[in-house]
Amino acid sequence: MSHFAALSELIGPAASLISDPDITASYSRDQAPFAESAPPFAVLLAKTATEISIALKYANENKIAVVTRGAGSGLSGGANSSADSLVISLEKMNQILEIDSANQIARVQAGVINLDLDKAASEFGLAYLPDPASRDWSSLGGNAATNAGGMCCVKYGVTSAHVRAMQVVLANGEIIELGKATKKSVTTYDLLHLFIGSEGTLGIITELTLNLVVRPSAPATLIATFPTITKAAAAAAALLQYRPSMLEIVDQTTLRAVEAWHPLGFEVAGSVLLMQLDENHSLCQAVLETCKSFGSIDGVYSDDPADASDLIRVRKLAYPALERMGATLLDDVALPITKIAEFVEQVEALSKDTNLVIGIFGHAGDGNMHPTIVHDHGDQAAAERAQNAFGKIIEIAQSLGGTASGEHGIGSIKPGFVANEISTTVIELQRAVKKVFDPNSILNPGKKIP
Amino acid sequence: MSHFAALSELIGPAASLISDPDITASYSRDQAPFAESAPPFAVLLAKTATEISIALKYANENKIAVVTRGAGSGLSGGANSSADSLVISLEKMNQILEIDSANQIARVQAGVINLDLDKAASEFGLAYLPDPASRDWSSLGGNAATNAGGMCCVKYGVTSAHVRAMQVVLANGEIIELGKATKKSVTTYDLLHLFIGSEGTLGIITELTLNLVVRPSAPATLIATFPTITKAAAAAAALLQYRPSMLEIVDQTTLRAVEAWHPLGFEVAGSVLLMQLDENHSLCQAVLETCKSFGSIDGVYSDDPADASDLIRVRKLAYPALERMGATLLDDVALPITKIAEFVEQVEALSKDTNLVIGIFGHAGDGNMHPTIVHDHGDQAAAERAQNAFGKIIEIAQSLGGTASGEHGIGSIKPGFVANEISTTVIELQRAVKKVFDPNSILNPGKKIP
Repeated sequence: MSHFAALSELIGPAASLISDPDITASYSRDQAPFAESAPPFAVLLAKTATEISIALKYANENKIAVVTRGAGSGLSGGANSSADSLVISLEKMNQILEIDSANQIARVQAGVINLDLDKAASEFGLAYLPDPASRDWSSLGGNAATNAGGMCCVKYGVTSAHVRAMQVVLANGEIIELGKATKKSVTTYDLLHLFIGSEGTLGIITELTLNLVVRPSAPATLIATFPTITKAAAAAAALLQYRPSMLEIVDQTTLRAVEAWHPLGFEVAGSVLLMQLDENHSLCQAVLETCKSFGSIDGVYSDDPADASDLIRVRKLAYPALERMGATLLDDVALPITKIAEFVEQVEALSKDTNLVIGIFGHAGDGNMHPTIVHDHGDQAAAERAQNAFGKIIEIAQSLGGTASGEHGIGSIKPGFVANEISTTVIELQRAVKKVFDPNSILNPGKKIP
Repeated sequence: MSHFAALSELIGPAASLISDPDITASYSRDQAPFAESAPPFAVLLAKTATEISIALKYANENKIAVVTRGAGSGLSGGANSSADSLVISLEKMNQILEIDSANQIARVQAGVINLDLDKAASEFGLAYLPDPASRDWSSLGGNAATNAGGMCCVKYGVTSAHVRAMQVVLANGEIIELGKATKKSVTTYDLLHLFIGSEGTLGIITELTLNLVVRPSAPATLIATFPTITKAAAAAAALLQYRPSMLEIVDQTTLRAVEAWHPLGFEVAGSVLLMQLDENHSLCQAVLETCKSFGSIDGVYSDDPADASDLIRVRKLAYPALERMGATLLDDVALPITKIAEFVEQVEALSKDTNLVIGIFGHAGDGNMHPTIVHDHGDQAAAERAQNAFGKIIEIAQSLGGTASGEHGIGSIKPGFVANEISTTVIELQRAVKKVFDPNSILNPGKKIP
């Protein structure tokens, strides 16, 4: 009996276990541009933790690779499959199980879309804060598995800070609960956080208990232009004193790409800072004066929420504007905020050396930068140079005390860079921890760990 | 050659390795009242990670138990030693290595006292937020090893949320770095958080990189009296909407103990809520109105920082007032905030059944309660009833969806209660993870894990 037939029999006829090659092909990869993938032999659109448990037990006994998939919105090839693997998609497990407004928590299935939870929470005057750029379509399970970031993290921290408990199916099919719904608990080792950011290599997250908070008030939004990104980056570090709920930076290359598409009036700017303040709106004028003391050209702000989307439009258009120019490789590194200027200089030099457009934008407030390499579609030589530059950008960040990934994950495209910043012992410890949870190495093999 | 002689030779004459029985006795236990302990055969007052590395390598090869000690302020027997163990104290590793105000981080040795860091940070307009009640004398390494809480956690989270990176000496003597100084990083498994709250069972934390934040402004302080704790607890849940930076509750037993010592005017109150707001002081009147809608008797507030210590005096006196009445057992459980009233009722019934005074106070805002059992000094029968009640309180919390420890840790006094709320599989996973880091089980054996 084939694995497909055996699995079908075990999980039962009500399960959505699919081998149709058109469909399996569409589940073979996430949004990473140059990561290997092949259609899996089957896709399970899981409806319950029990189905996943049955599938994992079989896969574990038969040493079948299993790739877990949330919404497929990942950017590091973490959800890419191989021909001999089973993909388990959580997309149908999309129920918000409970919003407990008095205790300010939500219990959700892993396939719930981030924004859907936030909308549901808003009806109680609450919010689910983590806001990856993909929040409109990425799943909370995927957010937890990658420890997704976003713009609000400068003030509110990454996904990791907002998860209290989870249900996990282990490689052997056992279903366990980690963490606690209470706000404080030190009863066990923090295995919960071990799973956050583990990219599907330790188990499958099926349910999450998440922090909700009192919905912050609508923010005031500010934008300031600078003659150089060096000045803008220096200002960004100083602006942390105002406890921004967003602090983004855009470089000149990206501004020009935006101007060429949607002229917004940033022709003369060398860089732009965008900032939001969700508490003390009265500080806006002081913020602009701080910007001025760092050499800003101009600055405006508004505390009318209606203006916010206009003011941050240049940041929202940054990536699509670069995408218009050709094929793109979106990188993701994090570094000390005081090193942003130096990082940008080195990436600009790389851009010249390689004759590639590299637009730089990112979350200045937490040093999480997204240099985006652009090359002509179909130009194979340029594509190779781009892929090479992608790695060089990581190495530049690492040489400045930074790290290979701030929020997108290591997936299948970055394991080769981890050893630059992590000792052999820590790599070995990761392998040993992986072995505890997944002794047969069936869960997302080849991902995350070098 | 004795282990002491061998260790002395290996670490060298400059090391403070002590076998004097008067001194070793004073390093044999923390502040937990009924946990076993015996003076260790030696105490190393470590000055460097290298000394610790040499000691651990020898201990590991010779299977000698090692108990790590910060300031000895723990409340769960986590630092208690046995006669055949080596105590390694971090108290001499008390240097603040760096305050990087631009990147808002501090790098400290593990023996630095919590308050000393906060004071040093305040010179830069920054703060180190986690504020365990022991912050004036507990060490940051101990805070991390126990994942210490405090009053500010209702708004700012526990220690876990404020640690970015650490240096650890493994059981085999290897010195490794975990985490990253950058605000975001998903490059490895989150082994950092595995160490936070691991109570010295996985390795010895020697250095920490900690989050600093812009110093919050001086809070407004409110106090409201209620006829019953049920009403006060219901109000507490509703008050979360104001994003309090402190939200504490005190029961009638404790109020009477305080009144008998320092009359503050709470004779008629059945319970008191204390609250601080470090942002929007203008909400104080609304807070008192909310309290009124939950049946408060009276309430006052002040946004003059000079008044704050007067207003929260009843909370500060809670534990010492109970201590005056006899021997005390200070418990520590966490539960959903909506279950506080039910919890208090059951503990009050327990108090009657056992003929023991049990004062209840705690961090209402995060459901972390500290019932304190009082019995006459020297009354052995009462002491046994008290110890029994200590366990019953944990079981009451667990039956209400709560947990065995909110912030004090499991140590040597609570491992027996863990299995009530954790599956066998999760306990086995903890043991397997422990084995990865400490294969010979030399690090704080018998603590934390059942």
